Amino acid sequence: MFNNTEDSKTKLSEFGEFGLIDHLTKHFVIQHNSTLKSIGDDAAVLEHKNPIVVTTDLLVEGIHFDLSYMPLKHLGYKAVMVNLSDVYAMNAEATQITVSISCSNRFTVEALEELYAGIQLAAQNYKVDVIGGDTTSAVKGISISITAIGTAPKEKITYRSGAKPNDLVLVSGDLGSAFMGLKVLEREKEVFKVNPNNQPDLEKYTYLVERQLKPEARKDIPELLEQLEVLPTAMIDISDGLSSELIHICKNSSVGANLFEDKLPIDPALISVCEEFELDSTTVVLNGGEDYELLFTINQNDYDKIKGNPNLSVIGHITEASEGIHLVTRANTKLPIQAMGWNSMDKEK
Amino acid sequence: MFNNTEDSKTKLSEFGEFGLIDHLTKHFVIQHNSTLKSIGDDAAVLEHKNPIVVTTDLLVEGIHFDLSYMPLKHLGYKAVMVNLSDVYAMNAEATQITVSISCSNRFTVEALEELYAGIQLAAQNYKVDVIGGDTTSAVKGISISITAIGTAPKEKITYRSGAKPNDLVLVSGDLGSAFMGLKVLEREKEVFKVNPNNQPDLEKYTYLVERQLKPEARKDIPELLEQLEVLPTAMIDISDGLSSELIHICKNSSVGANLFEDKLPIDPALISVCEEFELDSTTVVLNGGEDYELLFTINQNDYDKIKGNPNLSVIGHITEASEGIHLVTRANTKLPIQAMGWNSMDKEK
Repeated sequence: MFNNTEDSKTKLSEFGEFGLIDHLTKHFVIQHNSTLKSIGDDAAVLEHKNPIVVTTDLLVEGIHFDLSYMPLKHLGYKAVMVNLSDVYAMNAEATQITVSISCSNRFTVEALEELYAGIQLAAQNYKVDVIGGDTTSAVKGISISITAIGTAPKEKITYRSGAKPNDLVLVSGDLGSAFMGLKVLEREKEVFKVNPNNQPDLEKYTYLVERQLKPEARKDIPELLEQLEVLPTAMIDISDGLSSELIHICKNSSVGANLFEDKLPIDPALISVCEEFELDSTTVVLNGGEDYELLFTINQNDYDKIKGNPNLSVIGHITEASEGIHLVTRANTKLPIQAMGWNSMDKEK
Repeated sequence: MFNNTEDSKTKLSEFGEFGLIDHLTKHFVIQHNSTLKSIGDDAAVLEHKNPIVVTTDLLVEGIHFDLSYMPLKHLGYKAVMVNLSDVYAMNAEATQITVSISCSNRFTVEALEELYAGIQLAAQNYKVDVIGGDTTSAVKGISISITAIGTAPKEKITYRSGAKPNDLVLVSGDLGSAFMGLKVLEREKEVFKVNPNNQPDLEKYTYLVERQLKPEARKDIPELLEQLEVLPTAMIDISDGLSSELIHICKNSSVGANLFEDKLPIDPALISVCEEFELDSTTVVLNGGEDYELLFTINQNDYDKIKGNPNLSVIGHITEASEGIHLVTRANTKLPIQAMGWNSMDKEK
């Protein structure tokens, strides 16, 4: 699809660096008044009334994604999501991004157009301005480096360090699906290697595969919390797995926590696929990464404001640090929570 | 020096991702009050009173640098300079950077320590805070993606688009030396391949090689212009060569320009090395890249304020667009200036 083999495709060398950036970003629209100057000078110029938050992530082919099942348009979309998720995790609004890409001459102009179509769709859906970037050659593979900027009033910005004993632990959406989506895609890739004519029937996996290939960052959660007049005490996004992120909050806030197995939000599709793969769904929910949901804590007094909201699940509460970090199982036993991370979960199998 | 061959060196896998970032950045000091929160949360938090400028650059091994003659500490330093130069080119003060690095397991922890030592030295010398980043694996090679943030009062920010007919064209420092430094290093690399025991005598090339390996961004120029009460009408940094950058200013400002060959600032070391390499020094000055000097225009009325300043050279003046962009040679002939860029200069030889 993206390989530089067909004669009808345009080689990157046919554009100069500046021509290429101009070409790829010509349909991008500026949506924020805070963007005084976008692409086209030595630097972009922004004017924000409130403090800004800044985060950056680098995605590398062969490490973070596999183009044999990740379409380039999805990759562009996901690369933006990964970064915006970190902005929302500060309880802030995302406003601008810069996008730098390095790629080998195996990629054509048409391939980069696909990638930028995904970036543009993400920028449009999430109302962020693409204010700059760099497009350069690489000896091998493709890498995408994005820096995201957001803003929020100082008193609203939420760190990992504010959780207090007796706070409630909440999570948005459901967990583990992106990880199992990856397992399904990896299995299909192996099947394809053996029999390239096999037509995989992915219908029953649609939700899980979509969670892996087209994750959505939770722009709506900071907005919802503002409407509900709830100021979270601590917040983090779930990129490496619930266990690992909860430990970050506990370490940074000097507290402990209890999670309850029967409160963990699981999509029904996940349970049946976990059975198929002979994996324990609780383990997947605790350690599967890339869900890009938000994990946060609130004061108990705010419970009535969030009670019954379909976007949020109360999954536990914060304790004194001395009590440690535990999962209370359905059988009512307490297991210590360790940061396994989804990479090591794979290795341990 | 940096290869992962000696047993005494530490493999990257011995640190987790978070452990590695913590380890590499533990000596970094925060110098700006505008940095409310640095490394250690989902995003950094900054509070700037004035507008900010944002720029990003991606350096890729085998494309932008060659580790056979670029020590890792120098590479770290230069990667920061490349970005800060874009901030100064907006007539702004640089305040914060994020640093993302991807590298293969050919690199050890000690190698990354060297790289970060260069980044730290640059951050210290130029008073910028390292506020975030990402360190990740790569299948091959090493890439460095830096985003730099700066700030300036709105009325001081200088774009490429403000040059007016009769403005003077100025440049800081001298030009062409970084390019000839690269030529010298490439020649020595070839010699080394043939005879690894040959000890190169680089003493007469010290200045040129240093301009290539350890460029300094012109932090002092926006400061100097403020002291002199000169507001430039347009400004750009010289990364791709004087011709190319002048054309950017002329295009963005809808003007033409005349440069004078006898006014171009050339270091004496450059002239003798150009003779040695049988290259025309004016061509090198016009098209040699990576000098990271600033090219800018000022109103003629400000001439007395900058006259005789040893950091600045008046090299020409702005004309109406219809007059085109020309070099007036020592023989008083007018040659059109074209954007060759230092890459194509190499290819054309």
